[in-house]
Amino acid sequence: MNTPKYIKIKEVDNVATTVISIDKGTEIVDGILANSPIPQGHKIALTDIPKDGEIIRYGVVLGYALNNISKGDWINETMLVLPTPPDIHNMKYGVNVKHKLPISPVTTFEGYRNPKGGYGGTRNILAISTTVQCVTGVLNVAVEKIKRELLPHYKNVDDVVAINHAYGCGVAINAPDAVIPIRALKNLIDNPNFGGEVMVIALGCEKLTVDKLLNEVDITPENIIVLQEQEGFEAMIAAIVSMADHKLRRLNDRRRETLPLSELCIGMQCGGSDSFSGVTSNPSAGYASDMLVQAGATVMFSEVTEVRDGVHILAERCLDEKTMKKLENEMKWYDNYLEMGNVDRSANPTPGNKKGGLSNIVEKAMGSIAKSGTSPIVEVLSPGEKPSKKGLIYAATPASDIVCGPMQLASGITLQVFMTGRGTPYGLAAAPVVKVSSRTDLKDMWKDLIDVNAGVIATGESSIEEVGTELFHFIVDVASGRKQTWAERYKLYNDLCIFNPAPIT
Amino acid sequence: MNTPKYIKIKEVDNVATTVISIDKGTEIVDGILANSPIPQGHKIALTDIPKDGEIIRYGVVLGYALNNISKGDWINETMLVLPTPPDIHNMKYGVNVKHKLPISPVTTFEGYRNPKGGYGGTRNILAISTTVQCVTGVLNVAVEKIKRELLPHYKNVDDVVAINHAYGCGVAINAPDAVIPIRALKNLIDNPNFGGEVMVIALGCEKLTVDKLLNEVDITPENIIVLQEQEGFEAMIAAIVSMADHKLRRLNDRRRETLPLSELCIGMQCGGSDSFSGVTSNPSAGYASDMLVQAGATVMFSEVTEVRDGVHILAERCLDEKTMKKLENEMKWYDNYLEMGNVDRSANPTPGNKKGGLSNIVEKAMGSIAKSGTSPIVEVLSPGEKPSKKGLIYAATPASDIVCGPMQLASGITLQVFMTGRGTPYGLAAAPVVKVSSRTDLKDMWKDLIDVNAGVIATGESSIEEVGTELFHFIVDVASGRKQTWAERYKLYNDLCIFNPAPIT
Repeated sequence: MNTPKYIKIKEVDNVATTVISIDKGTEIVDGILANSPIPQGHKIALTDIPKDGEIIRYGVVLGYALNNISKGDWINETMLVLPTPPDIHNMKYGVNVKHKLPISPVTTFEGYRNPKGGYGGTRNILAISTTVQCVTGVLNVAVEKIKRELLPHYKNVDDVVAINHAYGCGVAINAPDAVIPIRALKNLIDNPNFGGEVMVIALGCEKLTVDKLLNEVDITPENIIVLQEQEGFEAMIAAIVSMADHKLRRLNDRRRETLPLSELCIGMQCGGSDSFSGVTSNPSAGYASDMLVQAGATVMFSEVTEVRDGVHILAERCLDEKTMKKLENEMKWYDNYLEMGNVDRSANPTPGNKKGGLSNIVEKAMGSIAKSGTSPIVEVLSPGEKPSKKGLIYAATPASDIVCGPMQLASGITLQVFMTGRGTPYGLAAAPVVKVSSRTDLKDMWKDLIDVNAGVIATGESSIEEVGTELFHFIVDVASGRKQTWAERYKLYNDLCIFNPAPIT
Repeated sequence: MNTPKYIKIKEVDNVATTVISIDKGTEIVDGILANSPIPQGHKIALTDIPKDGEIIRYGVVLGYALNNISKGDWINETMLVLPTPPDIHNMKYGVNVKHKLPISPVTTFEGYRNPKGGYGGTRNILAISTTVQCVTGVLNVAVEKIKRELLPHYKNVDDVVAINHAYGCGVAINAPDAVIPIRALKNLIDNPNFGGEVMVIALGCEKLTVDKLLNEVDITPENIIVLQEQEGFEAMIAAIVSMADHKLRRLNDRRRETLPLSELCIGMQCGGSDSFSGVTSNPSAGYASDMLVQAGATVMFSEVTEVRDGVHILAERCLDEKTMKKLENEMKWYDNYLEMGNVDRSANPTPGNKKGGLSNIVEKAMGSIAKSGTSPIVEVLSPGEKPSKKGLIYAATPASDIVCGPMQLASGITLQVFMTGRGTPYGLAAAPVVKVSSRTDLKDMWKDLIDVNAGVIATGESSIEEVGTELFHFIVDVASGRKQTWAERYKLYNDLCIFNPAPIT
């Protein structure tokens, strides 16, 4: 099979990206020769582009040429001027609502029914929540003991997870933006993977009091241990272990049941992206997402700074005005948040993204939104908010991988799909993370970290539909407990970095 | 012995605080009866105070009476109006520089000489730094393996610590305020407790590139592992374990030596404070601090919002104009930081502080600055900055315990003294934390968490000088490895919460 040398996405594009690294003089396409060596995944000019001329990929203006560019030139991040971001105040909604989606081959998964109602779980985990970081040292010692001494006796429980976080005290708890971390920590407790059990370790003098974290019905001595009420360290450990034993016993009685896919809620994220992400891994994730949505499942995608430059495209897919307005408001909030910090959306992308051929945030955004597929957007969530609808949902979170993950967990995802081009060993303790590579080179190098390889799309060995369908089945298998992700197998868990835009006092 | 019922600090004070809980009708002092039950550590009015009248403790106006207050009334946090904060633009410096300090009974400690020069270490720890949170999952697995398989063979090494943090990518790396976390992470690597060894795990595509984190001389293949260059998970673990083995071998050759106290650098912090903190634990910590400074040691104290209301008092103790100006600038920066978040210094204190009798941030601040003793302030540091002088130093950090600790570690402390009234099991993996209780009740309850009890000062059983001297000796013993703190013994370690005021993208 002949591997194509380049990928041109839309007919109007005046650049293509290289599938492999190209030597100087290589003929890319009829009559266009590379004027210099071009690294894998980078852009080559298909026409002469004059100074200030548009540089077009995805059919979208990525930026304007800083100087004259000749046909065959390598275009990198130093050669573009960023366009102004799309105006968020005059967006159209409902003009691109597509209801014809790829048919899902299965309609159920084997999950844990949620005793609180709502989405089912993909794992059966005892989560021990905390009001404040101060209790972390004691809790970690207790969790180690619980895992060593108790967990082996409860074969139906997958894990014990301490919900440690940096929030809870030493923060301006009444600052307007404090609503974000508080909502996230509150909703996190209800994640379906935690089986409806509530167990909270508090200190006793913190600002994030138990009544801010829990619903009134859950505020009982059976659910809460206050360290300041315990007679020293040994007593604290004994109390935590004893409560955990009680909770584990209940969780251990749970069994997987056949649930409709409408009880599955997953998240999509990408990190360490490259220029292949937008043509291989993200569109196939989008295809899998469309199949899931078609079957009634809920799929969230996120990352404000990585959709900001394509937000008008998302607005057109919003089902109604309310959804579009919420999208507008979340973008507005974030624009202001960045402005207060004296930065703008150009603070993203990373050096690795650029090395991978992504010249700026416009190009990154176009690739990023590909993971949302083509389904209508039924709801927009503020960071850490819970959904009220099923289908494709935009959950506004930072683009930072390690913050987006925990915030999607707070919104209720029970599995995450993570697309990567440069490669990251990212994982979450509270939900399995399926990792999809944008390049075959990465899968070849990280055989024991990448679950699904979408790089075969770039080389012409497979199609978006084929990889998307493979990914769909893998998601359902992992959700059903039939398969484990690599990150799960090795227990690669990142810290729970909750988004806190409020000041630290 | 007759326990006193109240503590009045300064002659001009028109309130006193109760040493124990008081029944209604109890005679506090000649002719003054409690008009209601008063909880332990709370304020009682010693005179009638009219509406808008000054409420004075520590000789300082804590606030103004919201309504008329009668002699014998319980004064709690709902009854005061906060005064305007001290003007930072017209502070005097050098007018209260005290050189007569309590004589230190010893002048040396047994520490680890620093191969990089500067302060010696109190512990011999292998720190494995990270550029970015993405590597945390892999690193944690590797550290567990290193502790299990390697550490037992290196008897002279105390521990292996992963410097995990939430910073490094997904942040606006060029935001003006990003200088704070970057400086902190960079300086943390040089903490004397890490013995001059540099070991960094990077991902490869992050914003916090290795050259931002390390000095040029340290950027070598012997010090850095880039996960994206490794052939999968197993190879990553093997590489980390192998590099750690090499570093552990070198650290294992180190031995404690007799070092002058001028090579000791410690930090002071308080958390979960109550109204006793300012009259028992903090002044005795201040006394110990004065002895250490007299012997040539360096002592840092911190917590911007908890000195803001006493900053004019600190300015008077600054040795020179430059130091006072830096103090002014740090306060100004923080005032602005809080204002941008739509809060002010009243966001501190916590509910627990209030329950412990601290009515507002002025009262908390007066107690907080007591831990700085009476020594002249020779230098003021921005968050995470390294000192250039020896003696008493104000290291401007947030008051949040879990942020102040890591930021003081970045500034180079090798031991921390932590005063608490309500009680917190706080600890740091990178340096021993000595915990001092402000109340005997807390020590009685938390026998296996509190190292030194200053509550005996309130009951008249001991004096500030006596407890201060006891604490001084305990600090030197722990620094010398002759004693362990409770938190060390149980391995109670908080997460490394680095201060990041820059936006998350």
